[in-house]
Amino acid sequence: MKESEVHKTLANFEKGLKENSYDIPPSMIYTYAALKMGIPYANGAPNLSCDVPAMVELAKLTSTPIAGKDFKTGQTLMKTIIAPGLRARALGVDGWFSTNILGNRDGAVLDDPDNFKTKEVSKLSVLEESLEPDLFPALYGDLYHKVRINYYPPRGDNKESWDNIDIRGWLNYPMQIKINFLCRDSILAAPVALDLALFLDLAKRSGMSGIQEWLSFYLKSPQAPKGLHPIHDIFKQLNKLENTLRYMAGEELITYLGQDYEV
Amino acid sequence: MKESEVHKTLANFEKGLKENSYDIPPSMIYTYAALKMGIPYANGAPNLSCDVPAMVELAKLTSTPIAGKDFKTGQTLMKTIIAPGLRARALGVDGWFSTNILGNRDGAVLDDPDNFKTKEVSKLSVLEESLEPDLFPALYGDLYHKVRINYYPPRGDNKESWDNIDIRGWLNYPMQIKINFLCRDSILAAPVALDLALFLDLAKRSGMSGIQEWLSFYLKSPQAPKGLHPIHDIFKQLNKLENTLRYMAGEELITYLGQDYEV
Amino acid sequence: MKESEVHKTLANFEKGLKENSYDIPPSMIYTYAALKMGIPYANGAPNLSCDVPAMVELAKLTSTPIAGKDFKTGQTLMKTIIAPGLRARALGVDGWFSTNILGNRDGAVLDDPDNFKTKEVSKLSVLEESLEPDLFPALYGDLYHKVRINYYPPRGDNKESWDNIDIRGWLNYPMQIKINFLCRDSILAAPVALDLALFLDLAKRSGMSGIQEWLSFYLKSPQAPKGLHPIHDIFKQLNKLENTLRYMAGEELITYLGQDYEV
Amino acid sequence: MKESEVHKTLANFEKGLKENSYDIPPSMIYTYAALKMGIPYANGAPNLSCDVPAMVELAKLTSTPIAGKDFKTGQTLMKTIIAPGLRARALGVDGWFSTNILGNRDGAVLDDPDNFKTKEVSKLSVLEESLEPDLFPALYGDLYHKVRINYYPPRGDNKESWDNIDIRGWLNYPMQIKINFLCRDSILAAPVALDLALFLDLAKRSGMSGIQEWLSFYLKSPQAPKGLHPIHDIFKQLNKLENTLRYMAGEELITYLGQDYEV
Repeated sequence: MKESEVHKTLANFEKGLKENSYDIPPSMIYTYAALKMGIPYANGAPNLSCDVPAMVELAKLTSTPIAGKDFKTGQTLMKTIIAPGLRARALGVDGWFSTNILGNRDGAVLDDPDNFKTKEVSKLSVLEESLEPDLFPALYGDLYHKVRINYYPPRGDNKESWDNIDIRGWLNYPMQIKINFLCRDSILAAPVALDLALFLDLAKRSGMSGIQEWLSFYLKSPQAPKGLHPIHDIFKQLNKLENTLRYMAGEELITYLGQDYEV
Repeated sequence: MKESEVHKTLANFEKGLKENSYDIPPSMIYTYAALKMGIPYANGAPNLSCDVPAMVELAKLTSTPIAGKDFKTGQTLMKTIIAPGLRARALGVDGWFSTNILGNRDGAVLDDPDNFKTKEVSKLSVLEESLEPDLFPALYGDLYHKVRINYYPPRGDNKESWDNIDIRGWLNYPMQIKINFLCRDSILAAPVALDLALFLDLAKRSGMSGIQEWLSFYLKSPQAPKGLHPIHDIFKQLNKLENTLRYMAGEELITYLGQDYEV
Repeated sequence: MKESEVHKTLANFEKGLKENSYDIPPSMIYTYAALKMGIPYANGAPNLSCDVPAMVELAKLTSTPIAGKDFKTGQTLMKTIIAPGLRARALGVDGWFSTNILGNRDGAVLDDPDNFKTKEVSKLSVLEESLEPDLFPALYGDLYHKVRINYYPPRGDNKESWDNIDIRGWLNYPMQIKINFLCRDSILAAPVALDLALFLDLAKRSGMSGIQEWLSFYLKSPQAPKGLHPIHDIFKQLNKLENTLRYMAGEELITYLGQDYEV
Repeated sequence: MKESEVHKTLANFEKGLKENSYDIPPSMIYTYAALKMGIPYANGAPNLSCDVPAMVELAKLTSTPIAGKDFKTGQTLMKTIIAPGLRARALGVDGWFSTNILGNRDGAVLDDPDNFKTKEVSKLSVLEESLEPDLFPALYGDLYHKVRINYYPPRGDNKESWDNIDIRGWLNYPMQIKINFLCRDSILAAPVALDLALFLDLAKRSGMSGIQEWLSFYLKSPQAPKGLHPIHDIFKQLNKLENTLRYMAGEELITYLGQDYEV
């Protein structure tokens, strides 16, 4: 579902609710109910839910913090760890091929190309943000990025991912990195859900409202105010999370300037 | 070679030079000559060279910047990218097995257990620093870390590493990550040597002297003043490098506080 | 293209030629021309060409040897090596996931699901034949076999395959095998084409005609007379090839009975 | 322990027993007792036990069948499956690097280079036999084969092997195969022990005695009469096993000649 008129303002949305607009899915009604009552809300799926102007407006109105979207847990987690690492060392990337096998209901659904569309956009975008091809076209301007999800019943819930990364070093010499991750999707997701609940509660009690971008650490597609790029680099995300907590606690921020050591 | 009396002070060292002390290897004489003349010096190998109090004292005396030791290029680079990532998400690590195959002279030498000793210490230490087992004994207190280097002539200069990481998630569920890195050692090392030359020259001209820990980004065993822990996390190292350059240029530092975006 | 009436007999086929039948593709006209002139013919692609009764009839008529189809070169080669090995040791197989990345024209074409159909059937069938699930339903009766081909330009002609095999041992304990094959498609295919040319010429000069199943060693989908199962196990195929050559040379066959040694 | 005078003849051996010879280990006394009583004996370890002329002589004397040595279960099983496959297609092999990690007592013992010696010889020999470098020096004459076993406690009994094979195709183009096998050593070994017990009992009751080379299918270092090369290729071994059973049952042997199909 794409953003449309009924999502643009709170007034439009409430009018749409009364008129049973087709563009308001059940999940968004749930979001509206929570925010109306001032209950913090986080979205762990890749759908719109609170990622529309109408909901952001409502959140601000009721002084409610929100966060979204799409929990970052396995293969994409590894991507947002490694891509910044390659960028840090100015290693060029020519191609990144990611494939997954899983045998639960998620896998059966996502194996179909149409259902995979939203997830694919979510998964593909993280790379472009971390590597910043506009700033470094020679290194990342010609990157072929492909993601596949395959339904594979024998594995059940034990998801497995295989990534092949074609990188380029000095003098354009090609090299390769392959990552094989044997994981358990729910085990990686559960603590993320828990943390978000705890931190959103903290944000509410601290008087913070609207998009909590300092929680982007947990999300594949962090919400951002219009016109700004969300950060995907997990280390910058962690730094933001920690510095926000330090700020809330009245502590000094860590900047890693020059001669400082972390003792 | 371990640090001994002749390395403790500049006076001891110069006395040792006159007396042809066995504890002063040729590489250290070279270091002494460079620092005496005020020429910046960096150590890309895992040996002592400038990592002794006598040389640090001399560097300060002649206002010369130094950096060391052991270029961080391939497998260890990946380690200092991934370990912080695992720590960021509080994923426990039970074991990390690293093996390498290479067919150049480095490989032939390091295949012998005795020659491997210094390299092994250097390679093993990075993990302990990134994961901080003292702070998180439940996650990293019982980590079996093993590194092997194998001489393998068919591959020549095309080094290959294979890492198996046994991690633990929520409720102690075990998972595994395997990293296969097909690289070229000299291609990864050359730009590191070049960068260090350029930045040490900049440091000299900027009036900086002694250990340049902001260059730890390039090193497996960054030198640190006695009693302080060097940082191995490549992202903190990069942050330190960049913020030092910003500071030198009179720019504002990036702290990633709360609502800030990097536009 | 599936077999139809016009392919069933030579008479039907020649009538179809005169009538410009849509079911006779250019490749099959080429086959007809060669066999009519008594020139041996082999099919390295997965299409029908000489794998129809009409062509087999013509081959017998002109005493011409034929062989087909689909060169067995990389990932499938590994499959027909490993599957028999697992069967030999009665290791059960629950799932076999095969994925490929390649960047040449083959890859661009096969990336589309429709074009992939013929190749997929060819690639999927080899497993069922080697493992014989009808004979061993407890071991191979519930096998999930999936093959994917992905267009990946950065790699060009350097095809790479990744296979994940979920096997089961004694007491049903699950185990896994992963095969990563970095190969070059044309380099693996060229010698196959050359061998087939040489052996078909030998067959012709030896007075052999019709389907040369002793050349199945080189093919993914070996042709077989109606009602018989082709053999895919590469070692049985090799044994057949070698014993046929021994037979043609008047030599004794090797049977590996009891106490014999191969000296 | 190497073969010496006391092992050369039964007479020497019995004299050695009386004299408490240091060259007769407890396992060999056990072998002697079993064979003396006509009880079939198989050796699943890489030590000498029944692989000496004295024991072979005793076995013949008491009409007892014997088999040995060193169960072939995991990584070496894969080796004797794949090496013949590469040889079948005349793919050259420049290097084969095998590494293992395991955390049980086996691993702790074998991690020490001295204890590893016998196992290493056993594991290294299989490749030379399968590839026959004397017959094909251009393909296999310059092969660097290395095997490592690493003690790795976190994995316990769940052994894991990683093999890197550097192969060469037509026109000398290099390619690579990597095999990652996550297995369970005892699960792979138990059925081997069981089969050997059953088949040795059958051999005894069928009046067969001495070395049962048709059971080489289960062994890494199959015993062979002096001067003959044992076969390691698992498919030839299986063929030999099956043809021997067919022979014993009065059935026809399978030779895979020319036009035959296995229906």
